[in-house]
Parts: sequence; C-alpha cells; structure tokens
Amino acid sequence: MYRSHNCGALRASDSNKEVTLAGWVQKTRDKGFMIWVDLRDRYGITQLIFDANRTSPKVFEKAKTLGREFVVQVKGTVIERESKNPNMPTGDIEILVTELNVLNTALTPPFTIEDETDGGEDIRMKFRYLDIRRNPVKNNLLFRHKVAQEVRNYLSAQDFCEVETPYLIKSTPEGARDFVVPSRMNEGQFYALPQSPQTFKQLLMVGGMDKYFQIVKCFRDEDLRADRQPEFTQIDCEMAFVEQEDILDTFEGLTRHLLKEIKGIEVDKFPRMTYDHAMKTYGNDKPDIRFGMEFGELNDVAQHKEFAVFNAAELVVGIAVPGAASYTRKEIDNLIDWVKRPQIGASGMVYCKYEADGSLKSSVDKFYDQDDLANWAKATNANPGDLILVLSGPAHKTRTQLSALRMEVATRLGLRKSDEFAPLWVVDFPLLEWDEESARFHAMHHPFTSPKPEDMHLLDTDPGKVRANAYDMVLNGNEIGGGSIRIHDKETQKLMFQHLGFSDEEAKAQFGFLMDAFQYGAPPHGGLAFGLDRLVSILGGQETIRDFIAFPKNNSGRDVMIDAPAAIDNKQLEELSIKLDLK
Amino acid sequence: MYRSHNCGALRASDSNKEVTLAGWVQKTRDKGFMIWVDLRDRYGITQLIFDANRTSPKVFEKAKTLGREFVVQVKGTVIERESKNPNMPTGDIEILVTELNVLNTALTPPFTIEDETDGGEDIRMKFRYLDIRRNPVKNNLLFRHKVAQEVRNYLSAQDFCEVETPYLIKSTPEGARDFVVPSRMNEGQFYALPQSPQTFKQLLMVGGMDKYFQIVKCFRDEDLRADRQPEFTQIDCEMAFVEQEDILDTFEGLTRHLLKEIKGIEVDKFPRMTYDHAMKTYGNDKPDIRFGMEFGELNDVAQHKEFAVFNAAELVVGIAVPGAASYTRKEIDNLIDWVKRPQIGASGMVYCKYEADGSLKSSVDKFYDQDDLANWAKATNANPGDLILVLSGPAHKTRTQLSALRMEVATRLGLRKSDEFAPLWVVDFPLLEWDEESARFHAMHHPFTSPKPEDMHLLDTDPGKVRANAYDMVLNGNEIGGGSIRIHDKETQKLMFQHLGFSDEEAKAQFGFLMDAFQYGAPPHGGLAFGLDRLVSILGGQETIRDFIAFPKNNSGRDVMIDAPAAIDNKQLEELSIKLDLK
Repeated sequence: MYRSHNCGALRASDSNKEVTLAGWVQKTRDKGFMIWVDLRDRYGITQLIFDANRTSPKVFEKAKTLGREFVVQVKGTVIERESKNPNMPTGDIEILVTELNVLNTALTPPFTIEDETDGGEDIRMKFRYLDIRRNPVKNNLLFRHKVAQEVRNYLSAQDFCEVETPYLIKSTPEGARDFVVPSRMNEGQFYALPQSPQTFKQLLMVGGMDKYFQIVKCFRDEDLRADRQPEFTQIDCEMAFVEQEDILDTFEGLTRHLLKEIKGIEVDKFPRMTYDHAMKTYGNDKPDIRFGMEFGELNDVAQHKEFAVFNAAELVVGIAVPGAASYTRKEIDNLIDWVKRPQIGASGMVYCKYEADGSLKSSVDKFYDQDDLANWAKATNANPGDLILVLSGPAHKTRTQLSALRMEVATRLGLRKSDEFAPLWVVDFPLLEWDEESARFHAMHHPFTSPKPEDMHLLDTDPGKVRANAYDMVLNGNEIGGGSIRIHDKETQKLMFQHLGFSDEEAKAQFGFLMDAFQYGAPPHGGLAFGLDRLVSILGGQETIRDFIAFPKNNSGRDVMIDAPAAIDNKQLEELSIKLDLK
Repeated sequence: MYRSHNCGALRASDSNKEVTLAGWVQKTRDKGFMIWVDLRDRYGITQLIFDANRTSPKVFEKAKTLGREFVVQVKGTVIERESKNPNMPTGDIEILVTELNVLNTALTPPFTIEDETDGGEDIRMKFRYLDIRRNPVKNNLLFRHKVAQEVRNYLSAQDFCEVETPYLIKSTPEGARDFVVPSRMNEGQFYALPQSPQTFKQLLMVGGMDKYFQIVKCFRDEDLRADRQPEFTQIDCEMAFVEQEDILDTFEGLTRHLLKEIKGIEVDKFPRMTYDHAMKTYGNDKPDIRFGMEFGELNDVAQHKEFAVFNAAELVVGIAVPGAASYTRKEIDNLIDWVKRPQIGASGMVYCKYEADGSLKSSVDKFYDQDDLANWAKATNANPGDLILVLSGPAHKTRTQLSALRMEVATRLGLRKSDEFAPLWVVDFPLLEWDEESARFHAMHHPFTSPKPEDMHLLDTDPGKVRANAYDMVLNGNEIGGGSIRIHDKETQKLMFQHLGFSDEEAKAQFGFLMDAFQYGAPPHGGLAFGLDRLVSILGGQETIRDFIAFPKNNSGRDVMIDAPAAIDNKQLEELSIKLDLK
C-alpha cells in the first residue's frame, strides 16, 4: 500500500496516528533547522514537517533535495500544528516525517502548478497533463463527472435506457461536413463518424425502446469557430408516444434536477417563448433573460419625421439601458465604436438620455421633440435614469446587431451573473430556412423534424412560413439543448426530402433505411439533445468549454500535446486503397 | 398525452378505471362478435377487447382492420377478465375499448416479432429495428444498461472520476491496425480512432486524477473473427499510487458487486493463478474453472516404452473426463475426428477407459500394461468410471489442442453452466512474446507494461523469461478484463521500446509526449480494462456479444441495415486531399 490516507483526509482527531501519504511536492520552505513541505494529491494538501531535532539526519538531508512536483511517499506521525491554518481542511495538523521515499523526480514544470498560473494557453495545452494538476482544471473535470452522473441517475430512474449507437456509420451530404473513415475490408468505401445518433435513436423508437438516452461523442468537420471542438459530447434523448409538451416537461425536469443537485438552486417553471417573439423582443433565438432591456420597435414613432436615416430603414428598434443616462459622452462614443466594428457592422447608433428629472436628450434632437422622445421611452419601457439606444436598417440584421449590443451593455453593467440561472424554452421554430449560397431551403433543425400540422398547407406556397414542432432549451443566452417532434410516416418524410431538394433516388440512397422503417409501424416520437460541454461550462459558471474537456483540440483541430493529426505510413495508405492528393 | 399507462402497468386493482394505452398490435383474435388484441410496448402486453354488444359499431369495424405491428392508441375501461392468465403480469385484466386511433399502419414484418422468431440472422440484422422489438433483444439492451449503470455507480462511490478522452488521436504502428480519419484542416495528415485510451489514462495519472474510469468505445481494424466487432466498448480504469494487489482488490470488488446486484450471486475471493500454472494445468491463459479435468503430464509414465509416437513427442498430456468410461466406440471416434479437424489439428488421440471395476482399457494396450495405465490415471487424477484422453506432440501446440478438447467435452457433458460463475485472476504474464513473422519480440500486453523488478536482469539475456506485472480477470473461460502496473519512468520506458525494436527516433515520434510526461513527476500507476460487450454477454448467460449490441456489424464490418460503409462523393475526397487507389 502506497498510502494509508490521502492528502485531504487528516484532521486534529487523527493526532498521534502513524500514517503513510503519497503525492506531489507543491512547495517547500527550508528554514535551516526546519523544513516544511506541502504535499498535494487530488484530494487536498497536507503539510509535512522535517525537524532537525526530531527527524533522522538521513531523512532530513533527503528532504533538502526535494523539488517542486517530485513524487514522494512519506511515513510519519500526525501532530497538531502550532499555528493552525483555518483556510485548509487539513490546516489543524501536520505530519512529522520519519521516512521519505522519492518515487519519482521532476523537471521544473514549464509553468507554475497553482490556481493562478503563469502559463499561457499554448504551453498549458502542450503540457495538459500538468495543467490538469491545477485545481481549476481538475475541479472542472470532477464537476463534469458529477453532472454526467446526475443526468444518468435521473434519466435511468425515469425508465430511460442508455443505448450505445454505432460510431462507424454512413456519410450524409446534408448538414455539416462529416469526418470519414476509409474501410480496408470494403475497398473504396468509407464510414462516417456521427454528427449525432439522430437516425439511430429514431430507429430505437421504431424498435419500441420507448425512452432512450446516451451521453455520446459526436463529430463535425467544420472550420472551428472560437470555442467549438471537432469532437463534442451530447446528452442525446428520444421518447416515443409523446407530444411536444411531454418532452418539454421531461427535460425541464432534468434541468431543474441538475440546478438543484449541482448548484442548490430552485428555479420556477421555465417560460416558453415563440421563435418569432424571441427574435422580435431580443433579436436572438437564444435570449439571455437574466435581465430586461427588451426591444422596443420605433417605426411608428420615429419614422415620418425629418430624419432620413430612420425613414429609409426597414426597422428602427431600441433598448433602454437601465441607469445609464449618466453615461459620459466618452462612454457613449465607445458604444458607438463598438457597434460599428466589422463583427457587428452597424452604420451608426442613435441615443437618448431619459434624465432623472424626466427630460429627454437625444443625439437627434434636431428631428425629434420631447413628445416624440417620450414615445420612444414608452416603446422601450424606459424609466427616468435610463439610456435609450437605437439602431436602424434591414430588420433581421438590425435585430441581430441590437442583440449583440444588448449583451455587451449587460456585460458592462454586470447583469450577466454567473451564479444566476434563467432557463427558458424557445418554441415554434421555422421548419426551413433559405440558404442564399445554394439558393434553396435548408432544414433549420434537420430533415426529420415534423412540420406543425396546421402549417402543412403552406409547404408548397410559402415554405418559409411553415413552423416546426421544434424547440430549444436556452440558459443564460446559450442554446444548451434542442430538439423536435419527428416525422414518423414515410410520405411526410418523402415530401420533406423533396422540399429540401433531394431527388427520390438521393433520399432513398441516404435515408432509405429510415423511410423503410417508417413502414413497419413507427410510433409518434420526438426528443432532444443537450450539448454537455456547454451545459457543464454554464453550470460551472465559466465561459469556455475547453476548460471542461480533459484533452481539447486547438482552433486548427490539433491536439498539440500528442501532436495529432500526423502523417501515416505508406503501408497504411496502401491497405486502405487511398493515396494522398495534395494541393 | 398519448397514454395514461404503459402496457405492463395495469392490475385487477385498476378495475373500472378509464385509461389510455398506446403500443403495437402483437396479435388479434377475431371471433366474429368478439375481437381480442394483444397490445405490446416495451413494458409488457395488455389485452384489449372489442365486443360487438358493448363496443360502438364504428370502433368494432375499425378493430377488424388492425394488422400485426400496427401502432394504435386506445381508450377504454379496465375490466377483470373472465379467464385470467396467471403467466402475464397484466393477465387479470383487459381493456374494454371505447375509442381506437390507428397511429400508424405496418407492412407485414419480414419475420415474426416473437420470442422465438422465424427470421434468420441476415434478415434480422437488416431489419434490426424490428428485431429490437423482440423481448430477447430488447431485454439484452436493458440488461446492458443496468450493468453499465451499476459499474458507474460502484466506481463513482469509490471516488473514481469518469473522464472523456479524445476519439481523434494519433496512429501508432504498434499493436492492431488503426482506423484512420483524414484531416481536412491539416492536409495529408490523419487522426486515428483509439484502440484504447491507454496513453491518455496514463497521462491522467501523471495529471493527478488518481482514480479514473470511462465506459468508452474503442476501435480495431482487424479481420473479424467470429464474434469480434470493429467497434467495441471497454470499461477502462486506472489508479495512481497502487501496487498490483490494490488493483486486483478494487476490480475484484467491482465484479463481485455486479454478480451480486445483477445476478444475485455471492462468489468467494477470486483464486489467483500464474500464467505458467494456467498454461500447464489448462493449456490456456483463460481457463474455465467451473469444472475440473486438469491436465496430467504423462511424459514420465508414458515415454520410454515401445510406443514411438509418445517417445518422439515433446509432451504427452491427458485429462480424465468424469464418468465417460461408458462412452461407446462411436462416441470416442467422434472425439478423435473432432481433434483431428483442421481447426484443432491434432494428429491423433489416445484414450484409456478407467472402468468402474478398476480395470483399465486403452487404445494402446499393445504398449502399456495395467500398471502403466494406473500411473496415467494417477497423473490425470482419474477415478473409476472416467475416460482418460491423451494427446502428444510439441508442448505448446499440444496443450492448446487438449484445452480445446477439454472445453468440447465439458460442453458435451453440460459442465459449462450459464448460471454458474467461476471468476479468477491469472497473473505473472510474460512481458514479451516472440513473433515468428516479424522475427522479434512483441509486448504481450502493451509496451507500457512494467516488467517485474526481480526479472529485469533477464531483459538482455533471456527476454522471453521476463515476467510482467500484468493480470487478466477470467470468467467462465473468457478473458473479461486485463491490465498491468505501468512503467512510470522515462528510462525504463525507453529500454522497453528498444527491446521492442523501436529506434529512439521512432519511440520519440510515437510516444515522446508520454516519455516527456514521465519526466515531470509521474506517480506509480496501473489499471485495467474490461470488455463490456463480453462481460455483459457472460453475465447474461449467452454466447454472442452481438446479441447485446443494439446495431452490430457483420463479419465484413458492414452495417447491413444502413448499408455502411459506402462510397463518398468526389467533393469530399477532394476536400480531404486524398483519392482512391483501387487495386
């Protein structure tokens, strides 16, 4: 046995016990006749003491050679400390060491193994195994495990069955780009790695499994935007014999359970908001509702005056920033510069201070009088002391810009609190969205999403107006889960593929197995998938998913620690019947 | 709500309740004025009754149109049955139907959806979603979920943390063939899918995670022997600051827990057997010890007589088959034919009947007298009534043949009982094994396995004799798990790679990150991995892992349901900078 206790276990009540500990040297303090060592493992830190008067000279000399991150085993006696440290669980005791074994030495680590490290992102990724020793990363991994375990326990208790679906499947041109895997045994053919187990979970419903879930890796070969990973983890769920309401109830229950068990927070029943309402009110289909600043549309009250910019705009829309009437000219100019950055792309911003005395002062006073501006205040629900910010232009683009601005001022005002949780459902998504590049409609969710029966008649005449039985769970401005009621009959599925521009042959080649399955007694079904990486990072009150992944890849899809991907040898290529075709 | 109850829920105490059920039509019996329908879902079967006197004509007529596997929703009243069925949990009641909705029709299924189906393997694979509706398959999937959940709960309760390791890693030439994934963003380079998370779990130990586990898919591109899958699932585990004994204790504990919770069986402490002993006594490193028939070596008592075959053999070895002295000539000839089949490859078999009266009668009586044969009986621990079977030839080959024969006669005698569980540990595996083809030593376990310190001195002089700190858990003749104490210092790891024929450059290119990691304070560590597919099938008392996998592949690595792998389009190939190179 390498140890009798771990480094987080011992208390004053253990005094006089003979113990064996093992771990890493966090730091040493050598005072000549006394040497203290902080010994660290996953569970905590215990102070060791080597005392020239009480420790054998041999052990004392050896202790002098210890460096940071050496791996050691010690035997000794638990004693109460003279000066206790109330900030450490083991702060009442120390170990008077009688035996010291160096299990492994260590080179000086390339960055400090402390909560606040001096290591930059790149070096920490390269030496990820050292970064994991740091509490912030280690605790994130333990936290992730706890969340996953709670998810499994909750769903299992509700009769969900975790079923493993295959990783070596078939490539489909719809959706994001697949990672593919050449098959050696089937020359010239390829498997694809799943972007999600979508069709398999639907087949499990056809197979009568009724309630399925799986915590599962999924893969997308996309150019990596910030905080996206080529491999990511989903909590994938599906239920049979359900309507949308059953699914929302079930997974709202799961999320409430997690918030309660993991964060100790009780939340009310989730608000439900239509996609249209979310877009109009927040300019965004994943609104952060921890704070207000709902959009006020100003067309009626700001157009038909002399201000040509507004008159020419499809939409004039504003928000009232609480308590920001006191912003200086410089602060406001800074916001104007912010919205004009290429990433946001607004051509300008109008503002109006609603002073505490009730007077209104705008950047366009030339065109609007107090009554006009009072109407702006009314439309944006502004109170005295607020600052009204107004953007104008094409409707969708302007909403998106104002949404970004709303989030930015909320961040500046400290309204996006990481310990506050405001979940909601966004429902009634459009079934299809127009893609300019390919000049055709794409499935907004995926091709298996069921149209709302009452909108089916629009499919031929006005496809963009057809709403889907699709829903997203949104938490603090992030989509943490999304799903839909699925199509479960062959004819509707065929119709759907037609509208997505598939020929019957293509549809059959790609998804024939699913349409065939629908002919053998498919039940009504639906489900959703949560992004576990994102969910965990939000619950953990942090921004980046990378911090919750043990071995993440960088923005070029590389694992810089193991240096992958890498060249493979010619024998492998030959066996796979492929060759390189470099540009 | 599609249903108020599932099809396994209702009892006599629910009589007179108005209920809504949904499910599949298992079968209908139309007696003219009465129609009975068995309605099935995941949870059970409930009998529906349509009665011309009590059911509305419209509903009654609709009931007549129901076919097998139609998906229906019914409303009705729970009534007690006149003739109860004590074999069904819901056998006391039936539903007098008042409303019938056909949710989906069904073509006639290509095989019967019953416990005993008329469908062959191929058709059931193609329509796997229908096969899953059958109780035997469905129950296997539910069973697998239960096992996985118990594993997670047990290990989590012991402070193990489940950490997800990456799927897109780097190809390594050592070991089995990798599946590779061309990288689009890193032209000409490839990821590999993991054969196991071996190096990552070791890095987690270097990172101080201390106790890791993961239920994880692994991939091997090998020609598929019977009952192997290109993707398979491991329970992967690793611990730091442990010796072999700690690991054996921990995972023996896990297995005992599973046997108790899942099967209700308490087993004694697992026997431990060295690899050498297992090979000598059972001819096999995964002995089935549910029964005896231990090997008796007969060189001393059977050589140096007139029988040239035995005299020329490196090894003469036999087993005593209990109670088989009564075998007829035909039965014995059948066994002789069996061992001579090419798969076994014995050139012949000698036998000796130990009659109930104590006399011995062998097939080589010309060369051996009663005293000689009595020595055979003694060496094989034979009792009167047993049949001694003897093979001879090169030692290793002959042991392997006799092991196969031992298993075959045990099967014929019904000694391999699926409800009996005899686990054991096999320990002290050789570190290296000679590979004739490449004319060099290979790591028997993998290159990270630690040699026994006391055998290190043999590494240069007699490498084949070096034993490893490696162990397998064996259950009923199957290796269900295996692992080792790992090397945790750079110098030993370097030495190991040298002995495996790696140049220093190759070792560095492939595993430099691991050897680097060992320089920064690697703790002693070790672990093991269980094959979940196999473990579940043995616990389930069945032979083939395929029956416990939702969507298995066939022996050519194909998913015949979705028809994968498949060709991909040229645009995909081009983006990946590869082209086909067909033979």
